Amino acid sequence: MTLPSFLSSKPRDFSLPNSSWGPEMLRLYELYNSQCEVETEGGEKQEGSWQRLPSYNRSLKFATGGVYLSKIIQSKARLFTRNIREQGAAFEYVLFNNKEEQRCVGIFQAGHLLEGPPGHVHGGAIATMIDTVTGTHATILSGPVMTANLNINYRSPIPLGSTVLIESSLDTKEGRKTFISCKVTSTDSSKLHTESTALFLSINVSHLLRGG
Amino acid sequence: MTLPSFLSSKPRDFSLPNSSWGPEMLRLYELYNSQCEVETEGGEKQEGSWQRLPSYNRSLKFATGGVYLSKIIQSKARLFTRNIREQGAAFEYVLFNNKEEQRCVGIFQAGHLLEGPPGHVHGGAIATMIDTVTGTHATILSGPVMTANLNINYRSPIPLGSTVLIESSLDTKEGRKTFISCKVTSTDSSKLHTESTALFLSINVSHLLRGG
Repeated sequence: MTLPSFLSSKPRDFSLPNSSWGPEMLRLYELYNSQCEVETEGGEKQEGSWQRLPSYNRSLKFATGGVYLSKIIQSKARLFTRNIREQGAAFEYVLFNNKEEQRCVGIFQAGHLLEGPPGHVHGGAIATMIDTVTGTHATILSGPVMTANLNINYRSPIPLGSTVLIESSLDTKEGRKTFISCKVTSTDSSKLHTESTALFLSINVSHLLRGG
Repeated sequence: MTLPSFLSSKPRDFSLPNSSWGPEMLRLYELYNSQCEVETEGGEKQEGSWQRLPSYNRSLKFATGGVYLSKIIQSKARLFTRNIREQGAAFEYVLFNNKEEQRCVGIFQAGHLLEGPPGHVHGGAIATMIDTVTGTHATILSGPVMTANLNINYRSPIPLGSTVLIESSLDTKEGRKTFISCKVTSTDSSKLHTESTALFLSINVSHLLRGG
């Protein structure tokens, strides 16, 4: 017997397909998901070159650490990109990581609540997805990090409702610094929407774990 | 007799105080709002050095222009920064413009639905507010514009629930380009959260108005 999700202690993974996903979103999901597991000649299943990354709407409790927050804010806090219940209305996205190639991709379907210029996605919503993909990528490469710089060139606007591809690649690592490049394009890569660079600084989280 | 707001054709102005605004948000609102109108020695009222900018949650209908959008998306589209009904849960902000000094300020109270790093505001939500304040400022200075570049240095994280000051100032105008600088600080200006530059390109909107 499976418990209904509100009784289950397992958090919902928001990066799995739902009924709001359009054909482009589903096609790209299947493209990368099919490369997450491969069958060998002997019929055995093996890890593929890509890995799907799960996505939740809350931080881990212990991690709220040293900062003073009112109990109300703390208990109600939700991840910015997963703060709207209605499926398809805001950010629908899934991230895949390719460890060997040090590359991460995000597939992002932009809902009607993300409007900036009339009929198009808000520059801040695009920045939010770039921060999400590059920040997740930096965390995989370097452990816990904070965004230090985001430099985004907006080349062409993204119409509301469309699905785009976000590609993040490692440029270099120097001490505490992780430099990443990121492109947002149409799903067939023919149209460039943004080009950006991001810098992340590794942070010491040992104090957050103390007594946790 | 005043009609209830859902029967009124006048859109709600989201930049007026509501019950979710904390003491810092209200104090700064009053500080700038009191400078929007001044009384002369003769007792007459005159325009002050600052002007409060109203803020709505929808674009003008005609402006959806040439882009193909499904009717559903078009009718349901909402401005990204005003897409959550619950007061205080996400972006609470008000913008004031100082025409003479070519300066614009935003007062921003960050709600619990904007979480990025545990207990702190998402880098993308901060980018969104910077884009909003500098983009509005560029529009006042240069007419309709699109964001061409955002370059943000994150200096210190913003705890969820806090109120910050966003200050935008004109650097220079060159042809179609408007260059703007922007700082996000604590409300007493003692703590620097971000330093950034933004570039906006003037756009030709005459085709959007044709036949409108």
